[in-house]
Amino acid sequence: MFRPEIKVCDCTVRDGGLMNDSNFSLETVKNIYKALSASGVDIIELGYRNSKKMFSPEKFGAWRFCDEDMLRKATDGVESNAKLAVMQDAHKASADDVLPKEDSVVDIIRVATYVKDVDKAIALANNATDKGYEAAINIMAISHALERELEEALQQIEEETKVFSCYIVDSFGSLYSEDIDYLINKFKSILKTKEVGVHCHNQQQLAYANTIEAIIKNVNYLDGTLYGLGRAAGNCPLELLMGFLKNPKFDIRPILDVIGKEILPMQKTMTWGYTIPYMISGILNQHPTDAMELINLPDNDPNKFNFAAFYEKQSNEEF
Amino acid sequence: MFRPEIKVCDCTVRDGGLMNDSNFSLETVKNIYKALSASGVDIIELGYRNSKKMFSPEKFGAWRFCDEDMLRKATDGVESNAKLAVMQDAHKASADDVLPKEDSVVDIIRVATYVKDVDKAIALANNATDKGYEAAINIMAISHALERELEEALQQIEEETKVFSCYIVDSFGSLYSEDIDYLINKFKSILKTKEVGVHCHNQQQLAYANTIEAIIKNVNYLDGTLYGLGRAAGNCPLELLMGFLKNPKFDIRPILDVIGKEILPMQKTMTWGYTIPYMISGILNQHPTDAMELINLPDNDPNKFNFAAFYEKQSNEEF
Repeated sequence: MFRPEIKVCDCTVRDGGLMNDSNFSLETVKNIYKALSASGVDIIELGYRNSKKMFSPEKFGAWRFCDEDMLRKATDGVESNAKLAVMQDAHKASADDVLPKEDSVVDIIRVATYVKDVDKAIALANNATDKGYEAAINIMAISHALERELEEALQQIEEETKVFSCYIVDSFGSLYSEDIDYLINKFKSILKTKEVGVHCHNQQQLAYANTIEAIIKNVNYLDGTLYGLGRAAGNCPLELLMGFLKNPKFDIRPILDVIGKEILPMQKTMTWGYTIPYMISGILNQHPTDAMELINLPDNDPNKFNFAAFYEKQSNEEF
Repeated sequence: MFRPEIKVCDCTVRDGGLMNDSNFSLETVKNIYKALSASGVDIIELGYRNSKKMFSPEKFGAWRFCDEDMLRKATDGVESNAKLAVMQDAHKASADDVLPKEDSVVDIIRVATYVKDVDKAIALANNATDKGYEAAINIMAISHALERELEEALQQIEEETKVFSCYIVDSFGSLYSEDIDYLINKFKSILKTKEVGVHCHNQQQLAYANTIEAIIKNVNYLDGTLYGLGRAAGNCPLELLMGFLKNPKFDIRPILDVIGKEILPMQKTMTWGYTIPYMISGILNQHPTDAMELINLPDNDPNKFNFAAFYEKQSNEEF
């Protein structure tokens, strides 16, 4: 038995873009979009609509900005029932970069924010809904949010926006199932007119399990990425989620196909997924930056595999 | 708050031995034993005590047989509070290979069995307890067990043995948390005088999550391996389990250290962990043999990354 209300959002190009400065080729993005459309995924997020004043277009690829012409090139001629999404970072995006909906191929604008930036996020979400889009808000780094501030932010989102969903984002991959339960209960108790979503990271190999836990707790908006491609240890693997969901509209085969053709070859130039440094950052509830630095050391650096020393150092930095 | 009844068993050398015919060097096993002992792990399983009539000693390494002199070489001079375990396969081991306890360094004999071989397993478990050891029974491939036969086997184990624990073994990595719950309830309802254990595989990245689920359901005997080393997608990573458990007697640092020094270098010659072929076998509840064959194809074989075709083929073989 399946729940038709469940909506799956793939954010491979968006979250994966955090590992390669959004430098995916147009052909790759087109192939991913095509496969995801064929798989029946509900929402496809093709990148950020962030500001060129905040990110250099020389360094960052097209999918950090998602200009309308690039989105059209990636999607034109592809049969798709999916809604097209882009993400705006609350503190790195401009309302002016969002055209009126009638001039855009975008359907959904998701605004990512820390609790402290919720007023910026609300402004961008309202800018989107005012211009005719559907909007959502993703609350990042939720495992660092102070409870009173989180509650106030949720109350504002409930009262001041028309977002269809507010997502719990476990940026540091540090949440256990009981934490997910606790947060879902809190979100649902305040967001009485909105859906709740989850976006999990895999530092502790719990991204998929926590997404299932959210399904059990009646969360309907779920994020995943192909083969988990995403920042650090990556995200909930979409292929696992599709293997779990029973809605007959979903087809796992195009996803398996594009993973073999487009995603696995990226492993030659990008490193994501479970490793000991990320695991350490996950259990210590820390941003993965230090772990990324360790992972990027050359193989002959004696510190690279001295995980006990890294754990010791990170433990001391915890407070 | 921690539960002192929880007993963690590391089976890196035993389950990992299924990926290299138990050909670990003595030095590696000694270093692993030393690190695990320093970490406070309760039980260390150093391999199989299987029959040399069933496995050729030319092909298989010492840890498939765990002769007493090899175990002594691996453990002598190492300070350890851990119990030393070996595994016997119900259909591939001999009672005669088990010396009286007073002549052995082994503390625990775990007997692995399919439901159909439970009488053989009971004979081996009773042989062990009669000779002075503690014994346990691991029920493999539980996701293929027919319910009536499983119940009968559990009833026999309850009535005919003195095992301290009976383990649920998710050999195919196909169980979801609700399946784990269901099986734990069944085991506990029949095994009124025994503890229950879990041994999970990671085909769906659920080995650790399912182990946490078992902890929540009051299961006290937990298996893990260093960096998940084990058959196919591997096992519940011990480092994650140690990061979760709060008993102050556990120390994660020696585990992190030995992973860097001994386990990661094995990736050059052994392949384990989450991959798409194993994921497919997991969601289809199949033995990983076919997936292993696909993974072992040369990289230039066009079938190797044609996952959609593999899924199609395996789906048709399901029944």
